[in-house]
Amino acid sequence: VVIGGDAGGMSAASQARRRRADLEIVAFERGDYTSYSACGIPYWVGGVVDSRDRLIARTPEVHRERFDIDVRLRHEVEGIDLDKRTVAVGGTNEPFDHLVIATGAVPIRPDLPGIDAEGIYGIQTLNDGEAVRRALDEDRPQRAVVVGGGYIGLEMAEAFVNRGLQVALVDLNPQPMSTLDADMGALVADALEEIGVELHRNERVEGFETRDGRLTAVATSEHTFPADIVVLGLGSRPNSALARDAGIGVGVTGGIRTDLRMRTDAEHVWAAGDCVETFHRISRRAVAFALGTHANKQGRVAGINIGGGYATFRGVVGTAVSKICSVEVARTGLGEQEAERAGFDPVTVSVESSTRAGYFPGAAPITVKMIAERRSGRLLGAQIVGKEGAAKRIDVVATALWNEMTVHEIEGMDLSYAPPFSPVWDPVLIAARKAAEAVEQT
Amino acid sequence: VVIGGDAGGMSAASQARRRRADLEIVAFERGDYTSYSACGIPYWVGGVVDSRDRLIARTPEVHRERFDIDVRLRHEVEGIDLDKRTVAVGGTNEPFDHLVIATGAVPIRPDLPGIDAEGIYGIQTLNDGEAVRRALDEDRPQRAVVVGGGYIGLEMAEAFVNRGLQVALVDLNPQPMSTLDADMGALVADALEEIGVELHRNERVEGFETRDGRLTAVATSEHTFPADIVVLGLGSRPNSALARDAGIGVGVTGGIRTDLRMRTDAEHVWAAGDCVETFHRISRRAVAFALGTHANKQGRVAGINIGGGYATFRGVVGTAVSKICSVEVARTGLGEQEAERAGFDPVTVSVESSTRAGYFPGAAPITVKMIAERRSGRLLGAQIVGKEGAAKRIDVVATALWNEMTVHEIEGMDLSYAPPFSPVWDPVLIAARKAAEAVEQT
Repeated sequence: VVIGGDAGGMSAASQARRRRADLEIVAFERGDYTSYSACGIPYWVGGVVDSRDRLIARTPEVHRERFDIDVRLRHEVEGIDLDKRTVAVGGTNEPFDHLVIATGAVPIRPDLPGIDAEGIYGIQTLNDGEAVRRALDEDRPQRAVVVGGGYIGLEMAEAFVNRGLQVALVDLNPQPMSTLDADMGALVADALEEIGVELHRNERVEGFETRDGRLTAVATSEHTFPADIVVLGLGSRPNSALARDAGIGVGVTGGIRTDLRMRTDAEHVWAAGDCVETFHRISRRAVAFALGTHANKQGRVAGINIGGGYATFRGVVGTAVSKICSVEVARTGLGEQEAERAGFDPVTVSVESSTRAGYFPGAAPITVKMIAERRSGRLLGAQIVGKEGAAKRIDVVATALWNEMTVHEIEGMDLSYAPPFSPVWDPVLIAARKAAEAVEQT
Repeated sequence: VVIGGDAGGMSAASQARRRRADLEIVAFERGDYTSYSACGIPYWVGGVVDSRDRLIARTPEVHRERFDIDVRLRHEVEGIDLDKRTVAVGGTNEPFDHLVIATGAVPIRPDLPGIDAEGIYGIQTLNDGEAVRRALDEDRPQRAVVVGGGYIGLEMAEAFVNRGLQVALVDLNPQPMSTLDADMGALVADALEEIGVELHRNERVEGFETRDGRLTAVATSEHTFPADIVVLGLGSRPNSALARDAGIGVGVTGGIRTDLRMRTDAEHVWAAGDCVETFHRISRRAVAFALGTHANKQGRVAGINIGGGYATFRGVVGTAVSKICSVEVARTGLGEQEAERAGFDPVTVSVESSTRAGYFPGAAPITVKMIAERRSGRLLGAQIVGKEGAAKRIDVVATALWNEMTVHEIEGMDLSYAPPFSPVWDPVLIAARKAAEAVEQT
């Protein structure tokens, strides 16, 4: 039995099927869709992607016909009985030999006056995306307020601009994209303002004004913004209530605890995706990141193990990437303050370089910030903001982090060079070189 | 004293200067330019880059005024006397305390009938590039033959097409770009044929027909091609004659041997760039690759050491990248046959994927071939051919190779994902996953 029909759950199901034709596999999904790209929702809302169905990787029919997985939509599992090995769903008790919990994340929805007014949306599921699309098409809103400056908030701000709305973004932090250090976030802020997003930093939303149950304005610590539509982009937390209620171990992050093979502490119960916590290889702490790429990998690991194979999930280094307006934004490892909180004494450098040889058409600015440990020179993290061709370089840093390299080692690496792709010193190498110099001087 | 005014030599000179203001530094360059991007020449010839001067990173004046380096152009060093510590140049003997040999590479120029005819060019130096530009502008050639299907040959074939010429490419190998395995080279061949380059594979050039000392045709093992202009792209070998004549150690590759700090076996004599051989970290053999990025790094290492610092060059993994017509091409590590020759038993996989999420505008095909060692699963190399956004992914593989990772380790890595940048499984991860499966099955 699989609870949750998206990345984590369905990867587990299809991998288990691949290794064991004899298993009966049932997946319960409370929504209307399976295996879709939640990350693609803002692009569909904004019109960059033209059809909802293109976001769906595998429909219930495909799961059923190609993988012999019995997918039941609009079925919400209400409880897990570990002793009887059953789940309660739709008034009956479904027995299991193996259970996969892939219940995803719940969006953070603060308990503010007016929060339940019509016109206030989250962007968590494809159903949410549909609701926003419908509101845009039917209600023709003019003024949007986005609450929260994380990835989804910023992508939604851009989507609204693309749809012709006036957009204000209200963020509690000194700069949007607070997963970056503030100096790098400032570059993202510039890109947002360039397309006309009105940015309000260090501002707390205190409530929503309504008329006849419909949103009319957003009240913050500083302003009142008239608004026809609001999107909440305040992040999410692991949806682990079902597991916790069943007595399955949940960690300090609120995510379900698993071992390397994605086993929970209950026998024959596995978990994968946004509902679990995992291991941060640099801070060495438990973390919960809601990212489809982890969900896919973890689900695959669970499925292989259920199917009798051997696979492990070895943690994360905190890599993330996004395209916000004209800039590409990426990060991996620890930021400056995160490094300090983890107990490191960080040395940081920032370099401005070019995505291609300076003389080559299309060469565009790229800023790389790199963070290393004082004395040892060990790489701790990096952040990149730049134009086309900038962000994917973060994967080099992620790979270096994975291998616990020092910045001294990185500066000598044999990365590719040709004028259409890089200056003769790749920006990542320049950053490592400067970081190595900074480490030597401290 | 520095012999050679390009990447290796001038990086050494400026790094030494940075650490020691008191040094007298003289650099002898036999050509007309210093510190230019040789890799940019085909783009300038083809008109993608509009001015020769944009290829020059630092003019002699900059070296002189900003770095106090006495650059002497059109000065060819004729000999090195290790006992007296002098170099013979322009009829005098110039004394040195430290000598940097950065004499670059000599293009391979087979001793064929007619090879010295007017109309036959190499593409090695900026002077060569100027000669070809002049020929294109003044002689208005119609038919070009490119001999050799390596990076420079292919880039020149494209440049000639851009300039409106009919282009035939003659290559001894079964596929162009023989630094790739033939199956990947075939994808490059398709891209060349798409823009109208006439490809002749497995064909050997046997001589050049001339009239009044001017080229008229190229005779191969199979055909006679009328030609107004020929470019030789047959690769190069280390220009180590000066060093060898002075008794400095030269390796089996023909490159000058150095230690990690870029010291030759003669005291106070250093070497850097295309004239040296280096260590291949995967085959564990000496190799000589003529690449500006290595030259810059090696020169920098030599200069830091001359200046009293400590730096090392830790070898290469064989990374290279190029843009050929509509495709991006990259490789790192060992190819299938190279792996066999080095003694490995390789397992190879190829995967076709997409540069972005399939539904995201601009998603384009990418093929990744990955080579791993049987049994251990150790990564040995990879090759990538694809459209925009494909090639720079090779740096992830290069970083993984540098760290001697297995494909099993790679498949779990935390690489960045967002729809504008990658499918939820990055093509590199998919290739590693398939390679890991292939290793398990053998």
